[in-house]
Amino acid sequence: MSDLPKSVIFHEEGPREGFQIEKNLYPLAQRIELIDALAAAGLSQVQVGSFVKAVPAMADIEQLFAGITPRENVRYTALWLNEAGFRRAQNTPNVDLSAYLMLYTTDALSQRNNNCTKAEQRERQKRWVTWYQDAGLPIESAYVVTAFGCGFEGDVPLSVTLDAVNYVISLAEEYRFPVPRIILADTVGWANPEDIRRRIGAVREMLPDAKLGLHLHDTRGIGAGNFYAALQMGVDLFDSSVAGLGGGPFANHANSQGAGNICTEDMVFMCEEMGIATGVDLDRLIEAALLAERIIGRPLTGKLMHAGRLKHGARP
Amino acid sequence: MSDLPKSVIFHEEGPREGFQIEKNLYPLAQRIELIDALAAAGLSQVQVGSFVKAVPAMADIEQLFAGITPRENVRYTALWLNEAGFRRAQNTPNVDLSAYLMLYTTDALSQRNNNCTKAEQRERQKRWVTWYQDAGLPIESAYVVTAFGCGFEGDVPLSVTLDAVNYVISLAEEYRFPVPRIILADTVGWANPEDIRRRIGAVREMLPDAKLGLHLHDTRGIGAGNFYAALQMGVDLFDSSVAGLGGGPFANHANSQGAGNICTEDMVFMCEEMGIATGVDLDRLIEAALLAERIIGRPLTGKLMHAGRLKHGARP
Repeated sequence: MSDLPKSVIFHEEGPREGFQIEKNLYPLAQRIELIDALAAAGLSQVQVGSFVKAVPAMADIEQLFAGITPRENVRYTALWLNEAGFRRAQNTPNVDLSAYLMLYTTDALSQRNNNCTKAEQRERQKRWVTWYQDAGLPIESAYVVTAFGCGFEGDVPLSVTLDAVNYVISLAEEYRFPVPRIILADTVGWANPEDIRRRIGAVREMLPDAKLGLHLHDTRGIGAGNFYAALQMGVDLFDSSVAGLGGGPFANHANSQGAGNICTEDMVFMCEEMGIATGVDLDRLIEAALLAERIIGRPLTGKLMHAGRLKHGARP
Repeated sequence: MSDLPKSVIFHEEGPREGFQIEKNLYPLAQRIELIDALAAAGLSQVQVGSFVKAVPAMADIEQLFAGITPRENVRYTALWLNEAGFRRAQNTPNVDLSAYLMLYTTDALSQRNNNCTKAEQRERQKRWVTWYQDAGLPIESAYVVTAFGCGFEGDVPLSVTLDAVNYVISLAEEYRFPVPRIILADTVGWANPEDIRRRIGAVREMLPDAKLGLHLHDTRGIGAGNFYAALQMGVDLFDSSVAGLGGGPFANHANSQGAGNICTEDMVFMCEEMGIATGVDLDRLIEAALLAERIIGRPLTGKLMHAGRLKHGARP
């Protein structure tokens, strides 16, 4: 019927995407509690925060990493956008240094995030590869930011997305590393399910054996449809946020209310209902979502956390 | 790639599902304004309310119907659960009397809605057919309530759903009317995308030429995935609610926050982005959603209404 994966990995980004877009700053102790709760729920990849200087909510990122109680088999990831960020990450305890590249499809967002054009950012990736290789880090993934559309420049043609993927392939050849997992980012909620199928299908055609991933936002309420379309294409890694938190601070979202990532526990629920393994304890993840809501102090957009799980089997 | 319909009809249920579940009563004038705005946005089927005595919010249903400004080519529908309700509908101006049957999959919800078992409710459908035929009304559709699962009784086996469909077929033979559109209702948000495909596929196998429809709730955040799965199966009629309002008052939702139907404007947006015609003016529908939010007086769950449409084409 469709090519659903047997298991899916969620890369939980709530602690970063969720808190960076909020106007308020939240106490370190609460954010540590949330990160520990997410890891305890069985999420194997949790993004603790970003080493991006311009984001006030992330000023205490070193203390955040120092404060968590690391669990075996959990990767505590971080975002960096340049060498200074990467070096800080290297010097911080508990940071998972799985290496990634970042390609842009538009100059406008590249300028905001990197202060350079998308072509210059591509060129810079050679240096990124060098830092990683010098540090002995395998290059695990390559993000194509705004792979579907951009809040500043609008539609992104498929050819531009594929150009970025081709550039990753050429880097892998030149610097002799295996082609990393290609992660297409729907940074501002531009994708629709058919476009997901089309773009993932085109990348799959170029790279039949590559692992693929998606970074999805539910900006316009169709994130769960995009997620399901991606599952049908065999995608088995997703960035998502507990309770539907999130949004990039410089990505030109219409407003923060609509900026959130796809909601981790709602998507875990979809997977589990369809027999796709996630490794997540959904009850504990719902508790973590309710904790996030208490910390943020307003109702969050996640739905399962409010409605509760289904009671299969015995009649209540 | 998939069997998407060329066009989709939305049956807007916000004025009924949205207001019946709210604790407060809302002024008639505001509800009339909302219904007129929904029709003006191009929705061709708008459910104004229900002729169900036990629902306080619907006590003024006759005045509501009298107050709207009917537009050509718009059906102003109503819900009735028994003969008394149907007779009231018959005696009310502006009511679209497109006839429907209602089958249940569990005794528990049938008892709550109809004060009888699901078998007795089936038997009663013979009388429903007779009222309709005596009134000269073609029988357009048949709802299978809780076709995926029930808040009281839990899982609903596929065979039980198909039993209900078979009963409709047998009624159509006995009373000599064409098999109506079969509408499977996910009354409390039990469905997942693969189960949508499975059940719609099974009904399609029994009735290759029948029109099919779905009544979907986004109770657990995967409604957009269910909607897309149904589109892939060629379903071309959906019950939905503006701004994501809604929920049945007796259906044992976990709570009203998670009870809403799939959000009309978000699903219209998905269709339009994928080239499926809806006949809806999305800008006007977003205005209607914002009006609904002002009336209800708290943030509603619709996302497009807060994030805004995509700006395709020219660079802003």
